[in-house]
Amino acid sequence: MNQQDSFKQSDEFKRGMQDIIVDTTSVSFVDGVNGRLFYRGINIAELAAHATFEETAWLLLSGKLPTKSKLEGFQWGLRNMSRTQEKVLRIIEEMPQHSHPLFVLQTGLSALACIDRSEEYLEEDNYIENVMRIIAQSPVILSAAYRHYLGVPLLEPRSDLSFVENFIYMLFGKIPTKNQTRCMEIALIIQMDHGFNSSTFTARAVASTLTNFYSATSAAVGALSGSLHGGASELVVEMLKNAKNSNDIEKYTRDLLHSGAKIMGMGHRVYKTIDPRAIIFRDLLTQLTSKDEKESDLKLLTRIEIEARKYFEEKMMPVFANVDFWSGAVYKKLGIHPILYPAIFAAARMVGWCAHILELRQNNKLYRPTSHYIGEVNIPYIPLEQR
Amino acid sequence: MNQQDSFKQSDEFKRGMQDIIVDTTSVSFVDGVNGRLFYRGINIAELAAHATFEETAWLLLSGKLPTKSKLEGFQWGLRNMSRTQEKVLRIIEEMPQHSHPLFVLQTGLSALACIDRSEEYLEEDNYIENVMRIIAQSPVILSAAYRHYLGVPLLEPRSDLSFVENFIYMLFGKIPTKNQTRCMEIALIIQMDHGFNSSTFTARAVASTLTNFYSATSAAVGALSGSLHGGASELVVEMLKNAKNSNDIEKYTRDLLHSGAKIMGMGHRVYKTIDPRAIIFRDLLTQLTSKDEKESDLKLLTRIEIEARKYFEEKMMPVFANVDFWSGAVYKKLGIHPILYPAIFAAARMVGWCAHILELRQNNKLYRPTSHYIGEVNIPYIPLEQR
Ligand SMILES: CC(C)(COP(=O)(O)OP(=O)(O)OC[C@H]1O[C@@H](n2cnc3c(N)ncnc32)[C@H](O)[C@@H]1OP(=O)(O)O)[C@@H](O)C(=O)NCCC(=O)NCCS
Ligand SMILES: CC(C)(COP(=O)(O)OP(=O)(O)OC[C@H]1O[C@@H](n2cnc3c(N)ncnc32)[C@H](O)[C@@H]1OP(=O)(O)O)[C@@H](O)C(=O)NCCC(=O)NCCS
Repeated sequence: MNQQDSFKQSDEFKRGMQDIIVDTTSVSFVDGVNGRLFYRGINIAELAAHATFEETAWLLLSGKLPTKSKLEGFQWGLRNMSRTQEKVLRIIEEMPQHSHPLFVLQTGLSALACIDRSEEYLEEDNYIENVMRIIAQSPVILSAAYRHYLGVPLLEPRSDLSFVENFIYMLFGKIPTKNQTRCMEIALIIQMDHGFNSSTFTARAVASTLTNFYSATSAAVGALSGSLHGGASELVVEMLKNAKNSNDIEKYTRDLLHSGAKIMGMGHRVYKTIDPRAIIFRDLLTQLTSKDEKESDLKLLTRIEIEARKYFEEKMMPVFANVDFWSGAVYKKLGIHPILYPAIFAAARMVGWCAHILELRQNNKLYRPTSHYIGEVNIPYIPLEQR
Repeated sequence: MNQQDSFKQSDEFKRGMQDIIVDTTSVSFVDGVNGRLFYRGINIAELAAHATFEETAWLLLSGKLPTKSKLEGFQWGLRNMSRTQEKVLRIIEEMPQHSHPLFVLQTGLSALACIDRSEEYLEEDNYIENVMRIIAQSPVILSAAYRHYLGVPLLEPRSDLSFVENFIYMLFGKIPTKNQTRCMEIALIIQMDHGFNSSTFTARAVASTLTNFYSATSAAVGALSGSLHGGASELVVEMLKNAKNSNDIEKYTRDLLHSGAKIMGMGHRVYKTIDPRAIIFRDLLTQLTSKDEKESDLKLLTRIEIEARKYFEEKMMPVFANVDFWSGAVYKKLGIHPILYPAIFAAARMVGWCAHILELRQNNKLYRPTSHYIGEVNIPYIPLEQR
């Protein structure tokens, strides 16, 4: 009997779980029709305009913007939890020099599960301590991984700097200007959460077995490292270089589209209009670009976008710029190495992952779906000699 | 506006993804109604009776039982890929002594992603090499983790032993008897795959972003480590001890059930009859138990099962023994420390995870579900001073 015959619902499911509702959430809302993104009900445009990293993280984790004393406690906790761990550093140093920071982070987080427990540093189910620890340690591990990659000495976090200042300081060894800090802060804020994207969904699925927060966020980093998820901003910068070299941006864009290739940084599973995060990144790039700059990335990317939109409009395809279209150019302006683009994404999204695990813990249910079997059954075992 | 009002489908989804079909597969088929499990169409009872670890692994990975020359190549490959990696060992030695072997495996696999790549040991998309490497390295890492836990020197695998013999040898430093080897081999065979259980589903979800096999299997180990997934066999052994101490097994069982607690090792999301793996584990335990043994675990567990079944029959609840009901007692007979029960599970399930990732790679689609938002929108940002 072929099982294919007996399951007539085979067409009833959509591959890639597209539009399949797997759980409820109140952490964030991706409004794909109107191109809006809300964290706990607040539009990210407002948060990008007014909030700090710590305020937004607290909002996502707890559901509400913090009062002054809550905020101070949280800032203090993050700082306190960011001391580098000798054992983690030694593990990083054992990794090959050119290890990608994301895999070092995946490794470091699951090692930290054992290290923190063994030092009785953390109670097993002190969730909020766990979460602060993970959010605080992520930039520490990522910076150490990056400096290991460069072959330069690692840096300790400084107690006089904010979360974002420290992240930049530990990466580059320089205290950033106010403008640089705010630019990075906005980039981190708008990438903190985004509904049930693949890595957040992974964090929830793993946490639903009741493993610890480290193990679940380590798994989420693995999901983020895939090129279909965390890697597009780097590819946009590459596309931009090729477009420049071609000497005819418009022709380059049309040729790319007609060849059937995808324009990196455009299109989205949920947004059928422009991604609100793309607008914010474009604004950042505009601020960072001097008016006198002749062939600025801003100008060149705008020309690619206009040309691509012409094509998509003609074909009536709802393909628009997404979060990654402008982000790489912003990071480039800040002098950041492309290998760090997904690392910045991870440091930000860590907050969202933790918020989702906390939410799930309040009413846990094991994520255990099912499959549609398309093979045969009752095939006999044939001994080796008779095969 | 409260979003709850606008989504009237809220009741249409089942929490925990129960019965949600997320993809097709031909790797294994869990027949929950008739209590059967098929690997590539072959009943696991036949495989447990006749096949070796390597044959069954090849069957799951490739879809067919191997010919003699394929089998020899695969055995050679696994052996060749099991050389211990200096860098991985040094990372294990940096972990705290009492680290759980599963978290060491999660850590080791993601580190191996970088180590293997940096040594140009593996081509990035040589899938079958990747898979052999991961299957071969898992018992090496787990044994090293266990011996690190005990504080005794690590052991290198031996080239004259089979996969299963080597696993036992590296754990305990003794070459196992034929009986011990076959017992462990059967335990590994019947735990290799099981439809879209949580960890396999995690492996697929993470791999669907196109990250590498190491990163995806590392994430799957994280899912397995949760107490709702990989941890029940250990708890059965604990329950058994309590039952023994109570001096009245039947009363102990009834009291447990009436208190609303769960009998460990019973119940299943998919099987509504006895789990076919439980039958095989019970047979193994029977073989390992001498007829003269008075208060054998076999006898005591049977009494718990009979008493519990009476209760469930009365209530018309389809709760039966699952894979974990007898497995712990089998491992105990083999002299294996409880901390290794989930480690053995992981070494076996590694094959299934790899088979599923290989299957997905043939026609990849990003696993990106959606959520049902239950919060509000358009909440204004209130400045800190006004909160
Ligand atoms: C993001 C993305 C993976 C969404 O994928 P999806 O929901 O599975 O949708 P599809 O890839 O099937 O796209 C639907 C249609 O739009 C087209 N399309 C989508 N994005 C496109 C792009 N960037 N350039 C050209 N065409 C695109 C597809 O070719 C497809 O056309 P078809 O129906 O004629 O085959 C996809 O838009 C993409 O690959 N974009 C480029 C990579 C990127 O920027 N990723 C970062 C996302 S934040
Ligand atoms: C395996 C398991 C998690 C399946 O969970 P599930 O599909 O979500 O089903 P539920 O836990 O909701 O069980 C359904 C009903 O059977 C009862 N039930 C299930 N397993 C039971 C058990 N082992 N002992 C007593 N009652 C049990 C539940 O209490 C529930 O009763 P209710 O409807 O009156 O509330 C569950 O059976 C269990 O916890 N078993 C014990 C742990 C175990 O052996 N895990 C290893 C699985 S391989």
